[in-house]
Amino acid sequence: MLELYYSKGSSAVAAHVLLEEVGATYEPIEVSIAKGEHRMPAFLRRNPKGRIPALGTAEGVISESPAILEYIAQSYPDAGVQPRGPFKQAQARSLCAYLCATAHVAFAHKHRGARWAVAEASLRDMQGRVAQNLSDCAAYLQKEAVASGPWAMGEQFTYCDPYLFQFSRWMEVAEVEIADFPKLQMHRDAMLARPATRKVLAMHGLI
Amino acid sequence: MLELYYSKGSSAVAAHVLLEEVGATYEPIEVSIAKGEHRMPAFLRRNPKGRIPALGTAEGVISESPAILEYIAQSYPDAGVQPRGPFKQAQARSLCAYLCATAHVAFAHKHRGARWAVAEASLRDMQGRVAQNLSDCAAYLQKEAVASGPWAMGEQFTYCDPYLFQFSRWMEVAEVEIADFPKLQMHRDAMLARPATRKVLAMHGLI
Repeated sequence: MLELYYSKGSSAVAAHVLLEEVGATYEPIEVSIAKGEHRMPAFLRRNPKGRIPALGTAEGVISESPAILEYIAQSYPDAGVQPRGPFKQAQARSLCAYLCATAHVAFAHKHRGARWAVAEASLRDMQGRVAQNLSDCAAYLQKEAVASGPWAMGEQFTYCDPYLFQFSRWMEVAEVEIADFPKLQMHRDAMLARPATRKVLAMHGLI
Repeated sequence: MLELYYSKGSSAVAAHVLLEEVGATYEPIEVSIAKGEHRMPAFLRRNPKGRIPALGTAEGVISESPAILEYIAQSYPDAGVQPRGPFKQAQARSLCAYLCATAHVAFAHKHRGARWAVAEASLRDMQGRVAQNLSDCAAYLQKEAVASGPWAMGEQFTYCDPYLFQFSRWMEVAEVEIADFPKLQMHRDAMLARPATRKVLAMHGLI
């Protein structure tokens, strides 16, 4: 059985929603970032990277959201959340890489600036840029990377959708107005209408 | 025919080496970051993100190294550079996501800190952390993520290897001593012994 290591309200929401969407049998295991449990030996033995989410499988643990999401999609082919054909698959991976390495990183400078600088003034400087950077990401996604709907890749609901939903949560925390980006708002609303999303948000104490 | 948009000495080296490894028919198209060509309309029409590398295909342009590398691997199945089985594939994607979103981002704070902060003092602060952060990445890769060789995933040469080689180039620029990480040094030496690597390094003016 799969195990999802998650912290409430973290970016693990994406993988969590996808597990529900595909009807996976899985055990959710809470690792509270607020309590520092991601830095404790019990979790580091499972994921030496100390990052959330992580997915326990019969063959070992997988970390990094793009890898976890596509693995879940591959593991439940009947759910049909894997894009079809090499080019669409590459576009999906490109979107996830952007969300992971540009958008999530832009957001991480809000609370995790100490990864990249030391002085308090530097951290404040970084924090001051977060809303603009996420707004730039949203503008790029709206104009170039997200289909006209209903889903990120077009007609097909894919493993990218819970991750794009996660992006809308980073926008919310950074106080970027989603109404300025109609495709992203439609996508968020469509995700919020799905039972899997509502179930996971409730488990994370977010609704 | 595939088109590789690259800037000399950039992280496009990874995709470039892989194209040579698989024996691809492709056109290398130079987009000089030093000359700001990645911000000019001719390139932005191809890749609105304005980032290098980008891969032109018959169906459209693919951006983000993890997506480009796996697409090349899928496009040339006879080259055998795609890991076998869903778990190994997930591990490869996890490694690439880490190189893209943690290691490359750590390196980017050396020259591209203005993405995340404004003040000169903040940029200097960031620059001062780069070598330590890349050293931490190297320690993680050495201990947890890279196989004992000869290649990143073990016996099989995969699309991850040119990307791990790229990481060794970031270490070099950041003056992190690779000899402290024997697996990474062995990997770098093994990559440097391959004709594809030497050909691409010569095209980029790096040897």
